[in-house]
Amino acid sequence: MNEMPAFASPAGDATRAVALARYPAVRAHTLDLAAPLSAEDQALQSMPDASPAKWHQAHTSWFFEALLLRPLLPDYQAFDERFFYLFNSYYEALGPRHPRPQRGLLSRPSLDEVRAYRAHVDAAMLRLIEQADTDSWARAAPLLELGLQHEQQHQELLLTDILHAFSCNPLLPAYAEAAPEAPDGGALRWLAHAGGAAQIGHAGPGFAFDNEGPRHTVLLAPFEMASRLVNQGEYLDFIQDGGYRRPELWLSDGWARVQAEGWQAPAYWLAPDDPRRPAGHWQRLGLRGVQALRREAPVLGLSFYEAAAYAEWAGARLPSEFEWELAARELTGLEQLYDAAWQWTRSAYHPYPGFKPLAGAAAEYNGKFMVGQLVLRGASLATPPGHARPSYRNFFPPAARWQFSGLRLARDPLV
Amino acid sequence: MNEMPAFASPAGDATRAVALARYPAVRAHTLDLAAPLSAEDQALQSMPDASPAKWHQAHTSWFFEALLLRPLLPDYQAFDERFFYLFNSYYEALGPRHPRPQRGLLSRPSLDEVRAYRAHVDAAMLRLIEQADTDSWARAAPLLELGLQHEQQHQELLLTDILHAFSCNPLLPAYAEAAPEAPDGGALRWLAHAGGAAQIGHAGPGFAFDNEGPRHTVLLAPFEMASRLVNQGEYLDFIQDGGYRRPELWLSDGWARVQAEGWQAPAYWLAPDDPRRPAGHWQRLGLRGVQALRREAPVLGLSFYEAAAYAEWAGARLPSEFEWELAARELTGLEQLYDAAWQWTRSAYHPYPGFKPLAGAAAEYNGKFMVGQLVLRGASLATPPGHARPSYRNFFPPAARWQFSGLRLARDPLV
Amino acid sequence: MNEMPAFASPAGDATRAVALARYPAVRAHTLDLAAPLSAEDQALQSMPDASPAKWHQAHTSWFFEALLLRPLLPDYQAFDERFFYLFNSYYEALGPRHPRPQRGLLSRPSLDEVRAYRAHVDAAMLRLIEQADTDSWARAAPLLELGLQHEQQHQELLLTDILHAFSCNPLLPAYAEAAPEAPDGGALRWLAHAGGAAQIGHAGPGFAFDNEGPRHTVLLAPFEMASRLVNQGEYLDFIQDGGYRRPELWLSDGWARVQAEGWQAPAYWLAPDDPRRPAGHWQRLGLRGVQALRREAPVLGLSFYEAAAYAEWAGARLPSEFEWELAARELTGLEQLYDAAWQWTRSAYHPYPGFKPLAGAAAEYNGKFMVGQLVLRGASLATPPGHARPSYRNFFPPAARWQFSGLRLARDPLV
Amino acid sequence: MNEMPAFASPAGDATRAVALARYPAVRAHTLDLAAPLSAEDQALQSMPDASPAKWHQAHTSWFFEALLLRPLLPDYQAFDERFFYLFNSYYEALGPRHPRPQRGLLSRPSLDEVRAYRAHVDAAMLRLIEQADTDSWARAAPLLELGLQHEQQHQELLLTDILHAFSCNPLLPAYAEAAPEAPDGGALRWLAHAGGAAQIGHAGPGFAFDNEGPRHTVLLAPFEMASRLVNQGEYLDFIQDGGYRRPELWLSDGWARVQAEGWQAPAYWLAPDDPRRPAGHWQRLGLRGVQALRREAPVLGLSFYEAAAYAEWAGARLPSEFEWELAARELTGLEQLYDAAWQWTRSAYHPYPGFKPLAGAAAEYNGKFMVGQLVLRGASLATPPGHARPSYRNFFPPAARWQFSGLRLARDPLV
Ligand SMILES: [Fe+3]
Ligand SMILES: [Fe+3]
Ligand SMILES: [Fe+3]
Ligand SMILES: [Fe+3]
Repeated sequence: MNEMPAFASPAGDATRAVALARYPAVRAHTLDLAAPLSAEDQALQSMPDASPAKWHQAHTSWFFEALLLRPLLPDYQAFDERFFYLFNSYYEALGPRHPRPQRGLLSRPSLDEVRAYRAHVDAAMLRLIEQADTDSWARAAPLLELGLQHEQQHQELLLTDILHAFSCNPLLPAYAEAAPEAPDGGALRWLAHAGGAAQIGHAGPGFAFDNEGPRHTVLLAPFEMASRLVNQGEYLDFIQDGGYRRPELWLSDGWARVQAEGWQAPAYWLAPDDPRRPAGHWQRLGLRGVQALRREAPVLGLSFYEAAAYAEWAGARLPSEFEWELAARELTGLEQLYDAAWQWTRSAYHPYPGFKPLAGAAAEYNGKFMVGQLVLRGASLATPPGHARPSYRNFFPPAARWQFSGLRLARDPLV
Repeated sequence: MNEMPAFASPAGDATRAVALARYPAVRAHTLDLAAPLSAEDQALQSMPDASPAKWHQAHTSWFFEALLLRPLLPDYQAFDERFFYLFNSYYEALGPRHPRPQRGLLSRPSLDEVRAYRAHVDAAMLRLIEQADTDSWARAAPLLELGLQHEQQHQELLLTDILHAFSCNPLLPAYAEAAPEAPDGGALRWLAHAGGAAQIGHAGPGFAFDNEGPRHTVLLAPFEMASRLVNQGEYLDFIQDGGYRRPELWLSDGWARVQAEGWQAPAYWLAPDDPRRPAGHWQRLGLRGVQALRREAPVLGLSFYEAAAYAEWAGARLPSEFEWELAARELTGLEQLYDAAWQWTRSAYHPYPGFKPLAGAAAEYNGKFMVGQLVLRGASLATPPGHARPSYRNFFPPAARWQFSGLRLARDPLV
Repeated sequence: MNEMPAFASPAGDATRAVALARYPAVRAHTLDLAAPLSAEDQALQSMPDASPAKWHQAHTSWFFEALLLRPLLPDYQAFDERFFYLFNSYYEALGPRHPRPQRGLLSRPSLDEVRAYRAHVDAAMLRLIEQADTDSWARAAPLLELGLQHEQQHQELLLTDILHAFSCNPLLPAYAEAAPEAPDGGALRWLAHAGGAAQIGHAGPGFAFDNEGPRHTVLLAPFEMASRLVNQGEYLDFIQDGGYRRPELWLSDGWARVQAEGWQAPAYWLAPDDPRRPAGHWQRLGLRGVQALRREAPVLGLSFYEAAAYAEWAGARLPSEFEWELAARELTGLEQLYDAAWQWTRSAYHPYPGFKPLAGAAAEYNGKFMVGQLVLRGASLATPPGHARPSYRNFFPPAARWQFSGLRLARDPLV
Repeated sequence: MNEMPAFASPAGDATRAVALARYPAVRAHTLDLAAPLSAEDQALQSMPDASPAKWHQAHTSWFFEALLLRPLLPDYQAFDERFFYLFNSYYEALGPRHPRPQRGLLSRPSLDEVRAYRAHVDAAMLRLIEQADTDSWARAAPLLELGLQHEQQHQELLLTDILHAFSCNPLLPAYAEAAPEAPDGGALRWLAHAGGAAQIGHAGPGFAFDNEGPRHTVLLAPFEMASRLVNQGEYLDFIQDGGYRRPELWLSDGWARVQAEGWQAPAYWLAPDDPRRPAGHWQRLGLRGVQALRREAPVLGLSFYEAAAYAEWAGARLPSEFEWELAARELTGLEQLYDAAWQWTRSAYHPYPGFKPLAGAAAEYNGKFMVGQLVLRGASLATPPGHARPSYRNFFPPAARWQFSGLRLARDPLV
């Protein structure tokens, strides 16, 4: 049986040793990220799509409990049976769950209790890693890796969600002075790729999500890729050229959004006369608080609609996810691949040919979201180091703009 | 000049002494009420109509700042200028304000900062009381009393709002074991009043809100008033007789609510098989947590629609607010007037003949809400002692059911 | 038994003769009103609160069928059994009904079929009037009168609803060149009434709705009443003085509406630069189409909120419904009582003391709407002659502005 | 100049002769389709996504007026200048337009006036065809073909929209007894294709929309295609196996829809106990009215979500749009390609590599909708003959189910 072909990890004792080091490290990083936030901050839910930092800490623990401890650790005693309901995110197979838009109403359990819950799960997990028999360990090892990857995904969300929450507070607080920032880009160069038949998808070794396979061949026309992301200066030019007032630049759904929600700039940008912090020049709210724009820094907080409108204005286009993956693998000179912003592509998030979801409860991990969203490639300033890779497929609906999401332009070569 | 005829208080030095005792006592009671709650609890806003406990503490301080300290204390330095925007509730004359539905997003200022803000305001208020010159004190004294009465109103709201918030948490937490409860009622008696011409409205001495006057004469037919509130046992009989399934008992708007929101019992009642706390019998969530119903205890958590439907079912009716006031003044033997639940009347909340609102910013206190709401009389288990009186007019929209709101029946005498 | 004390009509043979003349006359008037409209016009429903002209014609026939023909005409054969579901408006006791917001989707039955349905009901009604035995006629007579009064109410609604529908068409069509218009008012005079104890409510003889009783005594302070309605010129002054931009003039709910719906003038007024019909001066859409404002003509299309804001601006107030009734009965010199616009009062639409609804299905006629609405007195240009009287209580929610609704000011005498 | 490379038509005098025959024929077919409907029927708009039949007739005339007559016929006099606003659908470049959800409020212009408008446009178009100079005709010819193709698209919508409208009428009327029906399918066979490199997109000659190009090469794995569409009997088996109650079969967004809208069967299916037409067995509303299901007839009225859930249940999958196109071109034995139902594919509606929209106003025709929708291939019983072809790309959002939309299964070959 080969339930999870994507998890190429051997399941022998060597992996136990790795797990004993890796599990606590990943788990501790979550606590580090929460450290600058008060208990009040960590309870905030500013929209249904975002979750409180406290909830992220509990839910990632629930994931280990639900997929590993309950099925595989024989004598496991739940910390609190009610948490199984409270901290399930969307797994239908695991029963009903607390409504997503009401995660911000959970002042109880308190942050202290959630920390105790984490400690309880961690202790049990270490016991599982050390004591599971060979069969159990063979089943546990890929799920453990999945749980850690899952936790890393929520680490990024913890940051994007708190930034959204802080953006709703007229005081516009800062998350932390030393929070990660995206590096500036260099001079723009267009890097050419000859296209042709290309292998797409994860080829191993190492972990990959189910949605990164099966590896398969696609045919691509020649294309050129920008060496860096669109930067704040370029995007400001677009705004000042009337970008948000010209319907001909926009997809129809995007233009409807612009009008319905009054978009005039990327998420978290403050116009020069913003009453919350008037400065006479454009600013943006980031994890380090309100700062002046930097022309050379990448623009963040874009929806797909804005990315596509900008590309239209700039006489270029968005890359397909295949072009992106190929460029990331084969071109030299690309900046800001994994350390600045997720990069919208012109590809719908659909299954690759022959896609099969994981077995068991993990089947719901990725596959059931494969409609209505677009693929973003790369990784962002908030992605934990080591989490991303060329075949990684992030995905969001086209109107989402609360992520660290930007764009890298592509274009067809002149003939 | 007689800006506020309802505030009959003399403004001499005697009142300064009173104020020096009364101000800190009322302010301290707010802190006492918040004491059982964590900072996380105090940040909760579970619906647009409710506010976080932290917000109540800040807003009541803002009220003193906006109406007394800024206009009357010459050297007053604001604790934080931005709070003037954050903690205004609805005073148009005092400028724009933070949107009501987003009060729960204010993790900053922290609870500690709000406490410091309170202390800052308190120190300045004491300075004002002690040092204001005679003219200023004459203007300050009635506003100070208004501010204290305002704070008492928010003390009650702090409790009703946290109960609503806890009702949204599947864990159904308790506020405090020793929280106030409504007393049981005795045997039901019908007390007769002969009606006739009656004086309605506040007659002094002592404080009253502007909406309690002008005192005027109304003509009433003879009526009978129940000696106590409808109790939980009686209301359960109504439910079990199909009360929530029989449209002929309901006002049209009420029936629409029953269907749209699936009402089957008063707010916070748990059916015997409620999955959050199955018990095999009916329970209710109160400030002390989940408890079994008590037949003799008054029913709380009713909307006007439910009160009216129950009265129809019981072959009685709701009293008018005039009948209630007259009964409270003149009948003996009435139980549960001020210590159990606000009592819905069949009177719209409209101005009395000749009504004039207060002068200045306080003009917005009551008058601008005088349409679309109904009058409740009495007071509840959560009303601070000494706050209510026979002429007091509380008011809520007919669908509101998150207050400690019940009903006392009235009827026409048999001829 | 005296189920319907308000219907003072004797039920003898004399009334049969009256009915034989009156029934066809009232029914024919409905067809006259529909005559200027095409079948397409008559199918329009422009909002959930309004109904298609075709529906009005069918529903008024259904009323006779449901309350008279089915219960009282032994061999009655329904025209189409399905119409019993389609054309019930809100009578819960008579079973489920077609959803109100979807009345505009009924292209079938066609207008021709609805006309045939009317003829079928008319023939049966005449049979009932002529052939009912004495007992049946005694029961039928008051219901027949109720049915005719009901039809008259829908005659007015047919006009108000088609005007709303036409206002949604950018072509702004006219209903009919010879449609009724409100008369101009004369010079404004203030007419004084001494107040005192007054009898309010219908005293007979003749028909009245259940909500006009029981007659009872109220005490009124002295008051003054304007001799005519507020006119378009005065209201334009209010607009030009910033009436729609000054929150201090408005009730809180009203101000929220002004902002949420962008109100800047009464319903159906066109600003000088309205793109649909730019004229350089203010105009209004009425039944006769778009016309210039007339300073002396009464303002129509006001919500209660606007009426109250105007009164505040004018330094006056709205009358209570009791003041209005008393003035209409006892003062001389009042213009525009019944031929111009329904007149908002400062009275909630609540039951009079001792109110009992009609028996049977007619119980749902008025009583179940007695919350959340305000009383309008008088009658409008669209009210069928003979329909109104001093005790008549019309009612609408405070935001309703698609009626021919205006205001007559009242004030307290100078002391 | 090569504005519209997809329109391969030569623009010489031969094409004038063709146009003189083809234009009136296509236009007349629209009137034929409207013939069974009353003026009331033709004014119906039952949801924002559907339009009245009268509007379709006017809008298709507007299209000729806006794109051909105004720019190219020198002395053209508009029938009514206001129609330019009323009957624009979504062309931003052509100015503001009547709000889509309010098309059903246009009782004026009447159906007769719209017919006169059509005749006016037709006369002018014939004049243009006959009299345009060579240059003008070169520009006109491709736009004329576009206008006719556009009219054919609206011919199909006229039918799907009236069916939706009739489904909202409890009387469930029939459009016409002789309306088109989908043919039954034969025995199911799986037809194999070897995949490989394939040319996709329109290759000419003849008309194609811009979205069908540029032609390009894709690589496909071997696949198998069902010889016919899923039929009503098979789909009923899915329902009776709990298909609408099993979340594991559904995409996440689809499951949310099932719950929010209470889906239990395809659009227009009536359960055996449907109160509108109880029959003891399943029925469906079609253009011919209510009929019993036919096991062998194709299932219609499916959303993408339902199609995908069914495929999951059946152990198969949806084809990609490339597989579909290739199969339609190269496989023999495929039934129901163009005469039964549009067939959902697993392909997002995105631009082909190198896609450029048309020039001028026609640029808005297709390109701006290229996000958030899925491709359907084939054609339906309501598609005018000759309108579709293998490269044709229809598109709808995944929740749309008011089209004649069904599914053809695909699968991977056993290895
Ligand atoms: Fe998760
Ligand atoms: Fe307040
Ligand atoms: Fe009616
Ligand atoms: Fe079109």
